[in-house]
Amino acid sequence: MAVYTHVSAEMMARFLDAYDTGELISFKGIAEGVENSNFLVETRGGSDGHRFILTLYEKRVDPADLPFFMALLDHLADRGCRVPRAIADRQGVQIKDLAGRRACLIEFLEGISLSTPSPAQALAAGTALAQLHKAVADFAGSRPNSMGLSAWYDLAERCAGQWQQIDPALERIVTNELDFLQAHWPGDLPQSVIHADLFPDNVLMLGDEVSGLIDFYFSCTDARAYDLAITHSAWCFDGDGRNFDAGLSAALLKGYRDRLQLTAAEQAALPILARGAALRFTLSRAYDWINTPSDALVTRKDPMAFARRLMFYADRANADLFA
Amino acid sequence: MAVYTHVSAEMMARFLDAYDTGELISFKGIAEGVENSNFLVETRGGSDGHRFILTLYEKRVDPADLPFFMALLDHLADRGCRVPRAIADRQGVQIKDLAGRRACLIEFLEGISLSTPSPAQALAAGTALAQLHKAVADFAGSRPNSMGLSAWYDLAERCAGQWQQIDPALERIVTNELDFLQAHWPGDLPQSVIHADLFPDNVLMLGDEVSGLIDFYFSCTDARAYDLAITHSAWCFDGDGRNFDAGLSAALLKGYRDRLQLTAAEQAALPILARGAALRFTLSRAYDWINTPSDALVTRKDPMAFARRLMFYADRANADLFA
Repeated sequence: MAVYTHVSAEMMARFLDAYDTGELISFKGIAEGVENSNFLVETRGGSDGHRFILTLYEKRVDPADLPFFMALLDHLADRGCRVPRAIADRQGVQIKDLAGRRACLIEFLEGISLSTPSPAQALAAGTALAQLHKAVADFAGSRPNSMGLSAWYDLAERCAGQWQQIDPALERIVTNELDFLQAHWPGDLPQSVIHADLFPDNVLMLGDEVSGLIDFYFSCTDARAYDLAITHSAWCFDGDGRNFDAGLSAALLKGYRDRLQLTAAEQAALPILARGAALRFTLSRAYDWINTPSDALVTRKDPMAFARRLMFYADRANADLFA
Repeated sequence: MAVYTHVSAEMMARFLDAYDTGELISFKGIAEGVENSNFLVETRGGSDGHRFILTLYEKRVDPADLPFFMALLDHLADRGCRVPRAIADRQGVQIKDLAGRRACLIEFLEGISLSTPSPAQALAAGTALAQLHKAVADFAGSRPNSMGLSAWYDLAERCAGQWQQIDPALERIVTNELDFLQAHWPGDLPQSVIHADLFPDNVLMLGDEVSGLIDFYFSCTDARAYDLAITHSAWCFDGDGRNFDAGLSAALLKGYRDRLQLTAAEQAALPILARGAALRFTLSRAYDWINTPSDALVTRKDPMAFARRLMFYADRANADLFA
């Protein structure tokens, strides 16, 4: 949530010379997204819209993945999904270079990211996720999930010996859960490209309507129902993971299932997939926690907020959660 | 250049309920200004415009000074200066509270801040500064300069024993200059409210026109010619202070003097005032340098970039600089 790379207004104006976007009239670094530098760009007099997000890709996004992400956004937008398109320059190029980084000029979408969504908003998010899954049915691109089960083992290894600085119980929770998921992870569910990070942060809303799905930089090919499970873990608890909200859960699931029916195997797998989703964010947060200086300006996200969700999903008392 | 205080979209929407600004449709933290938290706010359906900057005042701005700053902006805007007004809520209140901070909703102005302005742009900045000085002639408010000569002694004392970590020559430069300025600082120049921080960062431009003067949080009552000297030190050198640009200097001075004639005493004082301006930023940067961890995400500004300007202004070979 910071601007990592300095871009002067003069550099930006020169960058825009290659586009049909008109004259630069405003340019602000914004605190948005994770580990990319983002700028809100406004122009006038162009034929290609007048407001944009410029993203410079920092270390976490592999430049080789950018063509996949941009093709996905184009495909989704063509099918009526509310996602921002990357703007092409006059030569048709979407992925460019600026300030030593790969850079894309992306449509600006109105809407606000909610911290405490309502059931009506969770329902709309579930619907939007199902629409996304339907819209990618004929999308040719694919990308392996770099944050799947084998990556969890890798992350756990890289945290070895340092769990204590987060929570004394965490090492045991993670080790037991990896064993459990390794043994029970479903292998034969319907797959497609999924968003894989649909937190409320990444859903722009106007009132109770979704106005944009953003931040596709974890999107990959994996089980569709796993995407629903990730979204469930992200939307249906309070920030520190202590309180589950049954109303949000019912609304999110209804929004999705009304639009896209789950197979019996998907339905049966949801409790396991949700445990995997909660473990995935527990582990990535734990890794970031251990590797972020405590006095850095970036706020560290608490891994225990997802470890608590994991405990909740693993609790037999909640076996009917997804029914 | 960061967002220090978290404000959720829901908090912002509730905050806006008190205003005639309509419904919140976009809300982004922006990396702008020094040591305040700023957000770009967009609304629709209101009668009071649709784009705003929300500023939360962090530690460096004294809340007791806010009424002065807001009255100044109103006064300047009423007289046709391009400055952002603070928006009043339906009760007429401009200075509010949000997230435990004093907060103001301020007009958004188009324009970009240049890193390497041209002479035509420096001329426009000089003109805008003179217009500001003319417009405050009948402004009743006043505020002591908290960054004047006595504050420089205080800053120097607080850096005592730590100059070495910046540059071995700096302690001697500062000590000698304080002696010199104490002996020669002019006491009888025309005073008014001045901006006191008119760096290119704080001047929004559209092409060669000034579209906004912003960031008045150092504005105070002091010699008008000192404001011109500050602006000169900020505009007429490259970033590290090694290269003076005579073209920018001539243009800035012409822009100002064509609009507002300097008295003989002001003209004669400019070389001293410029040394004071360069020392003021050397000292504030030195203090920040010493008190900012080197691994903080905030970029530390190099005090030597202004110590070099100071040496330039103090060099007898440049005695005719302001002629």
